[in-house]
Amino acid sequence: MSSAPLNIAIAGLGTVGGGLMKLIAEHSELLERRSGRFIRVTAVSAKNRGRNRGFALNGAQWFDDAVKMAGEAEAEVVVELIGGADGVARQVCETALARGRHVVTANKALIAHHGTALARAAEKAGVALAFEAAVAGGIPVIKVLREGLAGNNLKGVYGILNGTCNYILTQMQESKREFADVLAEAQSLGYAEADPSFDVDGIDTAHKLAILASVAFGTEVGFDAVHVEGIRHVSALDIAFADELGYRIKLLGIARPTPHGIEQRVHPCMVDAAAPIAQVSGVFNAVVADGDFVGSTLFEGRGAGAGPTASAVAADLVDIARGVRIPSFSVPAAKLVKLSVSPMERHRGAYYMRLMVKDEPGVIAQVATALGNEKVSIEAVLQRARHPTDAVPVVFITHETEEAGMNRVLAKIAALGTVVEKPRMIRIEPLSQ
Amino acid sequence: MSSAPLNIAIAGLGTVGGGLMKLIAEHSELLERRSGRFIRVTAVSAKNRGRNRGFALNGAQWFDDAVKMAGEAEAEVVVELIGGADGVARQVCETALARGRHVVTANKALIAHHGTALARAAEKAGVALAFEAAVAGGIPVIKVLREGLAGNNLKGVYGILNGTCNYILTQMQESKREFADVLAEAQSLGYAEADPSFDVDGIDTAHKLAILASVAFGTEVGFDAVHVEGIRHVSALDIAFADELGYRIKLLGIARPTPHGIEQRVHPCMVDAAAPIAQVSGVFNAVVADGDFVGSTLFEGRGAGAGPTASAVAADLVDIARGVRIPSFSVPAAKLVKLSVSPMERHRGAYYMRLMVKDEPGVIAQVATALGNEKVSIEAVLQRARHPTDAVPVVFITHETEEAGMNRVLAKIAALGTVVEKPRMIRIEPLSQ
Repeated sequence: MSSAPLNIAIAGLGTVGGGLMKLIAEHSELLERRSGRFIRVTAVSAKNRGRNRGFALNGAQWFDDAVKMAGEAEAEVVVELIGGADGVARQVCETALARGRHVVTANKALIAHHGTALARAAEKAGVALAFEAAVAGGIPVIKVLREGLAGNNLKGVYGILNGTCNYILTQMQESKREFADVLAEAQSLGYAEADPSFDVDGIDTAHKLAILASVAFGTEVGFDAVHVEGIRHVSALDIAFADELGYRIKLLGIARPTPHGIEQRVHPCMVDAAAPIAQVSGVFNAVVADGDFVGSTLFEGRGAGAGPTASAVAADLVDIARGVRIPSFSVPAAKLVKLSVSPMERHRGAYYMRLMVKDEPGVIAQVATALGNEKVSIEAVLQRARHPTDAVPVVFITHETEEAGMNRVLAKIAALGTVVEKPRMIRIEPLSQ
Repeated sequence: MSSAPLNIAIAGLGTVGGGLMKLIAEHSELLERRSGRFIRVTAVSAKNRGRNRGFALNGAQWFDDAVKMAGEAEAEVVVELIGGADGVARQVCETALARGRHVVTANKALIAHHGTALARAAEKAGVALAFEAAVAGGIPVIKVLREGLAGNNLKGVYGILNGTCNYILTQMQESKREFADVLAEAQSLGYAEADPSFDVDGIDTAHKLAILASVAFGTEVGFDAVHVEGIRHVSALDIAFADELGYRIKLLGIARPTPHGIEQRVHPCMVDAAAPIAQVSGVFNAVVADGDFVGSTLFEGRGAGAGPTASAVAADLVDIARGVRIPSFSVPAAKLVKLSVSPMERHRGAYYMRLMVKDEPGVIAQVATALGNEKVSIEAVLQRARHPTDAVPVVFITHETEEAGMNRVLAKIAALGTVVEKPRMIRIEPLSQ
């Protein structure tokens, strides 16, 4: 172990950058004791130099231009905490790698879109590209998949990867309120952004899932191939039915090898209420990895925030200081396999379908016929108390079937005169343990 | 990365050794792809050469004497899967390290007793001493503490570290049967040994806890300083009371820094039934690590068995093949701090005390007086339905107090003529999240 300090430059001094500055200042001795090197912030860059951030820069050189810093600062490592798939963040990382500097980033969008190319650049330069903080915040899940479970052929990896969605779904479950109402509350509490689309439409989860899948299966990162649905269409009524059926509704990101390629999908799922992942509530994240030797393992913790994210960045810095050099995605970038994706139409599973129907004789028979014509067999039907005039909800649970057939069923049923709203479909996810 | 094979010698071909042979044979390509080196078993040693083990030795050299193998085999790594704190297992590891060979072991007793000395020997020789498989089976918790959470000052680490105990307690909870009955069933199912003492008396958990504490706090391994109680005295009645009070009874190993030193304790705990660790059932293990930046993190998986243990050994082998060299206990052995242990008498917490008393007036007053004299305040009293002749159970829950005072209370109460059995005490463990 070298005793020279590890000099780092930090691009971005927002919540996470501030958390990292605090961690490095408070734990300078601890980090040196563990990593063998003193970790020193030699340069920083942010938008507004004059802003009072509540922490000292301790003599770090200020750069107005983060890209310039990435190229010129006296630093072995550049930490990118700006965010965004392209623009300055990408330039900072590319510049740093081109100059032979290690890159540590918390930027999931960047890695989801450009991870393979960046890993190639890092390996060409003989430096590390580390992004523990990009997935599931403080949970060291990249390390777990890439190293801790490296002896396993992974049969699947899935998780709750977005704390905002999990908070909203947990609140909906507990308070029996509707999505819009809970979202507004989450926004007022600071748990959801003013523009919540990245979170509630599943994009953030998809970024993280694409990264996890690449590390788990040694495939090129394929964000564009993720099937993405968010949680806007989950209703209090569906949550109540789920509860009655012994399920919880969770937004999961799921990646699994199938005979048709790797499935990568993000959508609301009904999971057994007794499954460990169903117990993960509020802003917590959790990842389950199923290995052929280890069985099912679960890793849970805070998925966002200054402290957890700084913890993950610090772990990457300690790895670099300790001289750990492991390919970013578990195998060298040149050996990553082209991602072969199983189309969502080939997905097989059980389905929850909830209809609002006119309370007339023969409706259930019409629906059952539509299902039967596609050879979708019914496991259960639930009908709520009758209202003489209003539409009534009817729920069908299917046995395992293929998504393509289910889509045809849904289209046919939507066209029935007796069905008054677009049918709601939620996939039922069987979870191993 | 070197492309030369990583030659390994395996001492011990029992359940875990067999699992490892299977993993290496089935995943030879995967391991090479991930680690950059082909992992080859060049030598093996076990008691009985003639035994049919159901797997091929593939040309590996046979040694009747594992110690001889550790010194002479053509191998960079010696994998010790014999078990036991001393004897052959210890000699194998010491011999291998003295010859400059890496050691990977699943032996918790060995590491708990001699881990610090072995780590010193490994560092002197410039080789790895790796023991991921020694704690919590397939859960890569050593890696998580040593690397993944390296940016944190850990405020505590605790867990369910013995699957046999957790299975027995889960069964007692679910079937409302007594310990002896469930133990006998567990033995007949192969979940408990014929001599169950190592498991049910908490020794196995204490071995693992001592290792976890050392990695978490950078202290020398101090198994002798672990306070150990097993689960034999947990009764169906106490489990029923716990349920009524909103608790589950779990055997936890807990290590925490306190103002008086580090607490290391293994004993049955009452934990909030809604806490994540309370949901960990059957033979599963789980470890919670509380970091000052990351918050509370939980890691769950199978704690024993051929597959999970082989998975952990394989992860250590991949690390070695990848050239990862991190001090075994997170900091170099020479920098491990002498363990300063907080004596159990200084422990502070709330207590559950269950008495069997004669149904006479004044008994509760006597007990309350004994508590009051030691300034132990009462949070709750529960009394069961009265039996005219038999003794009746009475439960006291205290507020937080010091163990020394609680011990004096228990001694006084045991001596009361109206108390007909030895009072039962179970500590109530507040869990952060």
